[in-house]
Amino acid sequence: MEERLEGYAELCVRVGANVQPGQEVFLQSQVEHAPLARALTRHAYQAGASYVHVLYRDEHARRAMIELGPDEALTHSPEWLKTFVESATGNAYLATVGDPEPELMADLDGERVGRALMQEVTEIALRQLYENSVNWCGVGAPNEGWAQQMFGEPDLERLWELVAFCMRLDEADPVAAWREHVERLKERADTMTRFRPDALRYRGPGTDLTVGLLPTSRWVGGATETATGIRFVANMPTEEIFTAPDCRRADGTVRSTAPLVLHGQIVRGLELTLEGGRIVGVEAETGGDLVRGNLATVENADRLGEVALVTGDSRVGRAGTLFYNTLFDENATCHIAYGAGYPSSVDGDPDGGLNVANIHVDFMIGGPELEVDALLRDGTAVPLIRNENWQLSS
Amino acid sequence: MEERLEGYAELCVRVGANVQPGQEVFLQSQVEHAPLARALTRHAYQAGASYVHVLYRDEHARRAMIELGPDEALTHSPEWLKTFVESATGNAYLATVGDPEPELMADLDGERVGRALMQEVTEIALRQLYENSVNWCGVGAPNEGWAQQMFGEPDLERLWELVAFCMRLDEADPVAAWREHVERLKERADTMTRFRPDALRYRGPGTDLTVGLLPTSRWVGGATETATGIRFVANMPTEEIFTAPDCRRADGTVRSTAPLVLHGQIVRGLELTLEGGRIVGVEAETGGDLVRGNLATVENADRLGEVALVTGDSRVGRAGTLFYNTLFDENATCHIAYGAGYPSSVDGDPDGGLNVANIHVDFMIGGPELEVDALLRDGTAVPLIRNENWQLSS
Repeated sequence: MEERLEGYAELCVRVGANVQPGQEVFLQSQVEHAPLARALTRHAYQAGASYVHVLYRDEHARRAMIELGPDEALTHSPEWLKTFVESATGNAYLATVGDPEPELMADLDGERVGRALMQEVTEIALRQLYENSVNWCGVGAPNEGWAQQMFGEPDLERLWELVAFCMRLDEADPVAAWREHVERLKERADTMTRFRPDALRYRGPGTDLTVGLLPTSRWVGGATETATGIRFVANMPTEEIFTAPDCRRADGTVRSTAPLVLHGQIVRGLELTLEGGRIVGVEAETGGDLVRGNLATVENADRLGEVALVTGDSRVGRAGTLFYNTLFDENATCHIAYGAGYPSSVDGDPDGGLNVANIHVDFMIGGPELEVDALLRDGTAVPLIRNENWQLSS
Repeated sequence: MEERLEGYAELCVRVGANVQPGQEVFLQSQVEHAPLARALTRHAYQAGASYVHVLYRDEHARRAMIELGPDEALTHSPEWLKTFVESATGNAYLATVGDPEPELMADLDGERVGRALMQEVTEIALRQLYENSVNWCGVGAPNEGWAQQMFGEPDLERLWELVAFCMRLDEADPVAAWREHVERLKERADTMTRFRPDALRYRGPGTDLTVGLLPTSRWVGGATETATGIRFVANMPTEEIFTAPDCRRADGTVRSTAPLVLHGQIVRGLELTLEGGRIVGVEAETGGDLVRGNLATVENADRLGEVALVTGDSRVGRAGTLFYNTLFDENATCHIAYGAGYPSSVDGDPDGGLNVANIHVDFMIGGPELEVDALLRDGTAVPLIRNENWQLSS
């Protein structure tokens, strides 16, 4: 168990963020992630980090703020936290996810929860993404509460086994396995970039959505490189290829196919109606107020920022269970995001087509019944995904 | 148990830091203190805090830094942490103590551990003390590791009972009990201030030390007030009266009478030799390198900054056990500190007599055999403490 934790942490540090000698490392974890945070810290120093800054978030403190604090507290971005994030520029950043209480805010006013966003902090992180100035990685931190949410019992070992499978720790040489894996994703992404469809069309139960792409949309998958040439894998696991759509072109309806844990509440059966690129209708079985809170608070949150394709060979999908965590669940199946588009997925000037917003919320729309087509400029529809299988030869 | 935690947190927020409506609250805890940190956060919002900033320290991350990081990391003060502490100016500050692994650094090079100090951060906090611009409180956070260190078993309930006793939570009205208690301490402090001895003389096994006082030394005990008039109790529990000595006048030897947990190591049998106010010799059964590391790293760490008198009626002393935590152990018995003197304990210009240093380390020197005398200007010795009893009538 100790050995698995060490191997896992080393993979995150060496392959994920790819910490360089002399870099500072900024690590954000939840208090319940301390065992992994400590292992990551040790491995970061072993990789030559000059300093590892460890910052723990506490969702219970955030809950108290939302429940008991004044309205102004909801949107406050503390100076010291802005300094923390800003200081990561040119350095490495690690984030651990895996909420021990995904429904901690369930009984709070959803609209208020949805407004509780540190936009100024997000803005700094998005600028770093824009400048590509941070080699970073988000990883899961298995814990009992998370296992409880998934299995109805705190079976931490079972969760670890699933996470280890998704992370390819069962391979004889996980580092080599990752190298191959990210190369495969890159090939698929490159195929799509060369293909340059004009739009994507999604059809499935409750979904009939057409999303325009930019002539300059670039598909990204696997590893990324910073402006200074440090190669990193921003999400582990990662099974997606994605791009930024033309945020001015999205029409139709889309229905989520998996529960989405968001800000301590669960959004189920999310149904968005889009017209001319804008979300004009939000319905949900649960969590609708939360999403409406997001959209009402953040400028341009009501436009799409990402379209991502994931197929059935995904290790996360093959794990065959909902993780109640976006990092994992979004890598099990196709998803889209409202909010910011990532500049790395546009070649050259997006000419107003890349969405700028201080939020980015992915939600899952894939599954066996989802059909994804590429629409070419002449109107031809080319099947991309059927029954979770990739239809293009690369 | 839940009720006790709530009552405890409320006492810390209302009587300790005395959080004012509209103030921000800066809370520093260890990750293992999360249950108390959360209760403090809730009570701070209930007291009207505009925002509660919760920052968790992790001693394991610090251990990794000392063990695996480069030399420069040892003395690094992160910008974001300086911003955090600086932002507390004019606001309230809460710190929880109670190390779950007081000997976490036991196997590391003591001198290196003793050098690992964030002096720039300390400097900011000391400036706030100087300006009296923060209403603050340090309190204990019972946890299993701490109980393990004290009792040889993780008997958290037993620790809680002792802490509750020290905190007067057994009183029918703890708030009223604290009001009376701090008033008693203030009376004793005022008596000493009016008495204005020229020096203190300590005699006991291994100890024969004379410490000069300033003509302007003011004795402090119980509650304090910020520059803007917010009354607070900086330590809970508190059983001491203390002042800043003339840092140029201390001669003799002094031997600690209780183990001192310091930076993750335990200093036992500390013996300091002082000449003309300076510590010129450091011996110890364990932890000597650590103390020498402190003194070698911080300018003026080798001068005294505090003399504190505690008598046998102290609730902490009556608890009859070593807490392996300075907040508690220093309130069980007489102690002195090397490093910074607190400006609040000098009336007017200290004229170079108040020690300025980016460190303050208390250690216990009291016990049944310690005799403390006040030396008057004419050379008369007036007994202050005999057999842990106060000898002056107030």
